[in-house]
Amino acid sequence: MSDHHTYKKVELVGSSRTSIEDAIQNAISECSKSVKNLEWFEVVETRGHIVSAKVAHYQVTVKIGFKIENS
Amino acid sequence: MSDHHTYKKVELVGSSRTSIEDAIQNAISECSKSVKNLEWFEVVETRGHIVSAKVAHYQVTVKIGFKIENS
Amino acid sequence: MSDHHTYKKVELVGSSRTSIEDAIQNAISECSKSVKNLEWFEVVETRGHIVSAKVAHYQVTVKIGFKIENS
Amino acid sequence: MSDHHTYKKVELVGSSRTSIEDAIQNAISECSKSVKNLEWFEVVETRGHIVSAKVAHYQVTVKIGFKIENS
Amino acid sequence: MSDHHTYKKVELVGSSRTSIEDAIQNAISECSKSVKNLEWFEVVETRGHIVSAKVAHYQVTVKIGFKIENS
Amino acid sequence: MSDHHTYKKVELVGSSRTSIEDAIQNAISECSKSVKNLEWFEVVETRGHIVSAKVAHYQVTVKIGFKIENS
Amino acid sequence: MSDHHTYKKVELVGSSRTSIEDAIQNAISECSKSVKNLEWFEVVETRGHIVSAKVAHYQVTVKIGFKIENS
Amino acid sequence: MSDHHTYKKVELVGSSRTSIEDAIQNAISECSKSVKNLEWFEVVETRGHIVSAKVAHYQVTVKIGFKIENS
Amino acid sequence: MSDHHTYKKVELVGSSRTSIEDAIQNAISECSKSVKNLEWFEVVETRGHIVSAKVAHYQVTVKIGFKIENS
Amino acid sequence: MSDHHTYKKVELVGSSRTSIEDAIQNAISECSKSVKNLEWFEVVETRGHIVSAKVAHYQVTVKIGFKIENS
Amino acid sequence: MSDHHTYKKVELVGSSRTSIEDAIQNAISECSKSVKNLEWFEVVETRGHIVSAKVAHYQVTVKIGFKIENS
Amino acid sequence: MSDHHTYKKVELVGSSRTSIEDAIQNAISECSKSVKNLEWFEVVETRGHIVSAKVAHYQVTVKIGFKIENS
Repeated sequence: MSDHHTYKKVELVGSSRTSIEDAIQNAISECSKSVKNLEWFEVVETRGHIVSAKVAHYQVTVKIGFKIENS
Repeated sequence: MSDHHTYKKVELVGSSRTSIEDAIQNAISECSKSVKNLEWFEVVETRGHIVSAKVAHYQVTVKIGFKIENS
Repeated sequence: MSDHHTYKKVELVGSSRTSIEDAIQNAISECSKSVKNLEWFEVVETRGHIVSAKVAHYQVTVKIGFKIENS
Repeated sequence: MSDHHTYKKVELVGSSRTSIEDAIQNAISECSKSVKNLEWFEVVETRGHIVSAKVAHYQVTVKIGFKIENS
Repeated sequence: MSDHHTYKKVELVGSSRTSIEDAIQNAISECSKSVKNLEWFEVVETRGHIVSAKVAHYQVTVKIGFKIENS
Repeated sequence: MSDHHTYKKVELVGSSRTSIEDAIQNAISECSKSVKNLEWFEVVETRGHIVSAKVAHYQVTVKIGFKIENS
Repeated sequence: MSDHHTYKKVELVGSSRTSIEDAIQNAISECSKSVKNLEWFEVVETRGHIVSAKVAHYQVTVKIGFKIENS
Repeated sequence: MSDHHTYKKVELVGSSRTSIEDAIQNAISECSKSVKNLEWFEVVETRGHIVSAKVAHYQVTVKIGFKIENS
Repeated sequence: MSDHHTYKKVELVGSSRTSIEDAIQNAISECSKSVKNLEWFEVVETRGHIVSAKVAHYQVTVKIGFKIENS
Repeated sequence: MSDHHTYKKVELVGSSRTSIEDAIQNAISECSKSVKNLEWFEVVETRGHIVSAKVAHYQVTVKIGFKIENS
Repeated sequence: MSDHHTYKKVELVGSSRTSIEDAIQNAISECSKSVKNLEWFEVVETRGHIVSAKVAHYQVTVKIGFKIENS
Repeated sequence: MSDHHTYKKVELVGSSRTSIEDAIQNAISECSKSVKNLEWFEVVETRGHIVSAKVAHYQVTVKIGFKIENS
């Protein structure tokens, strides 16, 4: 058995009408549909769309890290 | 009619006693008093004041982008 | 009496199961147990742990500034 | 007469269907409608939209510097 | 139907003998062979090879963003 | 009465034949001709012109922050 | 035959109990199980875990570049 | 006797009504009240307060390095 | 019992005549003399002294993170 | 024969009235008058002068790498 | 006669016992002994040595730009 | 005799088949063939070539500083 692991990071942009936290969770939820073993995220950028002088969507770019299976 | 647009970005610091999202919205609301067509924001910095060991104000620096009219 | 002050910044990582704001406050609360006169914070990094495709903890690195006493 | 000048920088996003250079020029042309004495630009970011796997618009963020009159 | 979308960014290096714009387009064209719904690109780095004191290839690193289907 | 304020930052380049501090003050003085309530500055870049192997002008880029009136 | 190539970069975190170089190699070895034509790596971040005041694992984030086949 | 030393860096904000250099020195003087063996400083950020369109205080963030005793 | 922890980061410069890894370990060893529960490190900067065209000392700046007790 | 090479990078600013690519080539051409074996370039900064609301010169800072002879 | 010029930047560290401005000037004076046509400088880093809790030397890293003759 | 010195930094890329430390030393050794008084180095970038899924060469970009003679 190996004494070390290798991880991969993917970069996603989650969006949400309600909060930065919700946009992060949406990115993670979407990522989990195709990747297992998600372990951590890092916020890279926070931005969003404005409609009628209101935040319409928070758009949060996150890097999501996961262990490569059998690594 | 032009086939391209030009946008301007202005940099504001919104503040709020309650949340980062509210500080962003406050900057956008203030900006909308003098500028139309706000389209997006980018968070540049998040900081705040502390009073009696509590966050007293979140201060969020945002760049706000809007289309220059008739561009 | 001096006409200037000196401040120190310390770097902490606050965590929270619920929100980025709560993680910031937790870092400040912990810091206030050993340091007085906390005046401001600056968010340096936002990341977190993921468990079962859900954010388990937000981990927010903040620099916290305080006045050095008698400076 | 003063022996020094003061300059201001504004941040614009020029766009173009054809090239990065054209997007820069479009931002400058738009800026010149309301500001005189434009002297230099600095490219801050280059990005763009994609439609049908083709670059539809280059979007180039530039800072444009100009001398403040009578400074 | 969801009221939000999730996007993924991938990082490619396009190259071209002729121009920076052509290198960007080459990266996008290659990316479109395996991914649908490409929406935007961000230039991360511009460099190139020199042969006999001439630019032989522009090499432009771009992040390309696309909507995750059914997100 | 609002319990929060909004601030705007503008970016200027002050110049001076004598010192970095003087260049900063020149930018602030010029800015104060058109804007009230200047509250703080942040140095972004320090550079200058050289003539006959002497610094001819310090050129200091500063962001200047001020409270938006009635915000 | 095309006169240019397109490359992709993926971001991995290799780990090792013994050295930074070994962590880089572990990331590359793992990557090579699913991707061919690996050509270069760029170190993005170096960090690690500490156990009993000893480095337990070096964790090196690398971007790994490879030629897209038939590009 | 060890053939190597370990240093620690602390981050302070010195302020001064007169100059950037004086703000740096004030931070160092304050730091020296509690720490010995100060060896070097690195300027991290220069900013300040404005009162009545004049620089009221320069605020210079410095990292100050010192040798850990007996290291 | 709290469901969250707070961590502190300190910044040290470890040095070594032999390797980057050894410089990191030296910083950690020195840090562990006064702080318990060291958990991770992040390399911030790698530099060194040269004597007679040989590396005399590697100097590696690391941030070391540890859990604040009872947090 | 050595199994490794050493490269040097020099930093130049090429200018051109016509395009970013031409400014890069001009820097390379000038560099090649005094240095052989130029191998690659990296764009560091893109800016330019404006005259009468038109780009008068693109000014592109590039690092140019070349193999040190006999290394 | 060419309608464009090429510039080179060199990186020097000037030092001074008295001020940041003096350290910049010292770097420029030294540079001018071997290079003609110095045109501008850019401050890259400001640091210094401390002796007996006083700034002993300011050390300012500057990039100095000059026109390549006959370019 | 002057009470201050001026230093120059040059940027080299050292390579090695065996380690990051060896690549740094190779850059320094090469640099010392033409320059005296090398005093320090700063690692700017670490990357390398991959052949057959193995690191073929570490390529470490370093800035090397040396005192300008008679400065």
